[in-house]
Amino acid sequence: MPIITLTTDFGYKDGFVGTMKGVIWGICPEARIADISHEITPQNVTEGAITLWRAAPFFPAGTVHIAVVDPGVGTSRRALAARIGDQYFVGPDNGLFTPIIEDMQRAGVKATFVTLDKPEFWLQQVSRTFHGRDIFAPAGAHLARGVKLEAMGTPINDPVLTPLAKPEKIASGYRAQISVVDTFGNLTTNLPWPDVAGRKLLISIKDRVIHGLSTSYGHYQPGDLIALVDSENFIEIAVVNGSAAKALDARAGDMVEVLFTEAD
Amino acid sequence: MPIITLTTDFGYKDGFVGTMKGVIWGICPEARIADISHEITPQNVTEGAITLWRAAPFFPAGTVHIAVVDPGVGTSRRALAARIGDQYFVGPDNGLFTPIIEDMQRAGVKATFVTLDKPEFWLQQVSRTFHGRDIFAPAGAHLARGVKLEAMGTPINDPVLTPLAKPEKIASGYRAQISVVDTFGNLTTNLPWPDVAGRKLLISIKDRVIHGLSTSYGHYQPGDLIALVDSENFIEIAVVNGSAAKALDARAGDMVEVLFTEAD
Amino acid sequence: MPIITLTTDFGYKDGFVGTMKGVIWGICPEARIADISHEITPQNVTEGAITLWRAAPFFPAGTVHIAVVDPGVGTSRRALAARIGDQYFVGPDNGLFTPIIEDMQRAGVKATFVTLDKPEFWLQQVSRTFHGRDIFAPAGAHLARGVKLEAMGTPINDPVLTPLAKPEKIASGYRAQISVVDTFGNLTTNLPWPDVAGRKLLISIKDRVIHGLSTSYGHYQPGDLIALVDSENFIEIAVVNGSAAKALDARAGDMVEVLFTEAD
Repeated sequence: MPIITLTTDFGYKDGFVGTMKGVIWGICPEARIADISHEITPQNVTEGAITLWRAAPFFPAGTVHIAVVDPGVGTSRRALAARIGDQYFVGPDNGLFTPIIEDMQRAGVKATFVTLDKPEFWLQQVSRTFHGRDIFAPAGAHLARGVKLEAMGTPINDPVLTPLAKPEKIASGYRAQISVVDTFGNLTTNLPWPDVAGRKLLISIKDRVIHGLSTSYGHYQPGDLIALVDSENFIEIAVVNGSAAKALDARAGDMVEVLFTEAD
Repeated sequence: MPIITLTTDFGYKDGFVGTMKGVIWGICPEARIADISHEITPQNVTEGAITLWRAAPFFPAGTVHIAVVDPGVGTSRRALAARIGDQYFVGPDNGLFTPIIEDMQRAGVKATFVTLDKPEFWLQQVSRTFHGRDIFAPAGAHLARGVKLEAMGTPINDPVLTPLAKPEKIASGYRAQISVVDTFGNLTTNLPWPDVAGRKLLISIKDRVIHGLSTSYGHYQPGDLIALVDSENFIEIAVVNGSAAKALDARAGDMVEVLFTEAD
Repeated sequence: MPIITLTTDFGYKDGFVGTMKGVIWGICPEARIADISHEITPQNVTEGAITLWRAAPFFPAGTVHIAVVDPGVGTSRRALAARIGDQYFVGPDNGLFTPIIEDMQRAGVKATFVTLDKPEFWLQQVSRTFHGRDIFAPAGAHLARGVKLEAMGTPINDPVLTPLAKPEKIASGYRAQISVVDTFGNLTTNLPWPDVAGRKLLISIKDRVIHGLSTSYGHYQPGDLIALVDSENFIEIAVVNGSAAKALDARAGDMVEVLFTEAD
């Protein structure tokens, strides 16, 4: 039962995503298709990379993830397909899969990359502006129906990598960044909780200071500004039953200092 | 062919909903999954309850409805699974299923409730903020693949109930409320049409008065303010080809008087 | 493996679309369902028609397309089902399928139309305001499970046609219109590229002039205003990594002149 996911900046209003599903089912009728997001900020490759990275590990082995945030469509940027661990990834070679590749490298997991240069696995006519439909959806569908990755393109070993900003270690703790603002206005940082576990913390963002980590939203009063460990094990800043993004006028990239209140 | 539905306040931008589908398919690969809504107003349990209640009866027997509007995630609020009539419901025990339970009680249909306290039916790691992924999606998927409800948790008979506001009978008719504002700006009230069927009506909302019920949007001029019977058999107020919510600056909870223009 | 698509103006917030899926799976449990769009501007039949027309050709033979943009719901407007070429179409008889029918007529493809007047293929109770749920979803599901089109209603040969605006030939080129504004703010016109292929072009919109066609977004600087051939082979106006709709304050229906800069 092949599974395909889609992550794009195409939005839900136009028929672009539906069209990709038609192409997929024309090639692999048994595919189950899950939308991860189609509201990635247009052309924001980093946001697309983070969104896919957070969702992909929860899909079964063999899943084919198609991701299209592709400001370079129609230029000479390569089209990529990869097997990383036990899953497949298809999309433009522009860094979209960087955090997944980095995680795998850290874990010593094998990855194989090809550039999608075999037109027999594309639609017959390829437009200059919609490779999601013409190249990536068909390639993903062929993988899902069992075509070998190695048959679909020329091997490469230099996929484009655009590493995410990492927190900076400072004397008294870490200088981190907001990496994602979610629908609720919660602010996820790029600081993994294990890096500060067991320490007493003071979290500073904009002109506000938060003392320590809370264990959940539900233990506080609506409107309280809190810090906690998010569902991916990163430090997050939230307003209970509200939006920290609005309350602090905060966005991705803003600085967050996480300081130790006692010496080592 | 198991069917699962999802109703949440997670929005479509983040990958939360896609992640839940990955978890479900990892446990029950044959499941078909329908999104009912992921744009419930954040933390608005009542809106989630009404939305699910209106959709659920149109799904086949055996459907598993997973609903997550969960301001108490991470606190001691219980996790619930229920068999009500011939369908299953999974979500936080915070009143989300109240109108469905009430309908069933009125109809004398049997319901069985358990609290989801058996970790073997959860993901191995459970976060404090995303039980939709870690507890409710796996529990729903296990139900869909045939695990018995009674095996998944301890029986309870006191699920949290948060009854919807009911219309108040007054001398000359009913004092009702707007219960839902839909995408078109139509205003559905909590007054069932059968309660006023056969009477001549005058509907009063804000400073406007509507005489009688129309039979459809299409018989009037664009811009006309009308009242009619909605698709669930409740009294609804609408602006033809327009938004009654905008025209009247109306929202859920606003009062609507439905008055009889002739004595009994 | 039957495939059904849905195109509506119902939005994603209410449970209307999910409800239709419940009805479909109650009748045809094997159906795969793709959302084409549910964010058609309310009551905008033309926008719905264009959106479906662009997506439908990418679906396999046998696909059943259900489209509901239906300001006349509850009036005497007919309910339509059609076989056009190797696909099926179900929806209100208000012009929603016009561009598809026109394309097929041009190509000499056979089409068969029936008016859905056999209640045994509807839900048992039919509301006055939600025929998407009560008539179109069940009819589409019955087609998907193999019921013959001809069994489902009385043949008609006069479906309502509401032709799209066509570009006007002028001495020096074409006076075209914006037909669709997509999520990115790209402006697709109604002028097919083959009509001007091989000519040197000057494109004029609002008070701006564009010289010639670009080959992709990626070859220019962010913010540049360009014209190119869109993924459906029509002339399109775009701002690289930006929104032409915002930059030009442009919307569907606005005039675009495409002029030849050299005499024939």
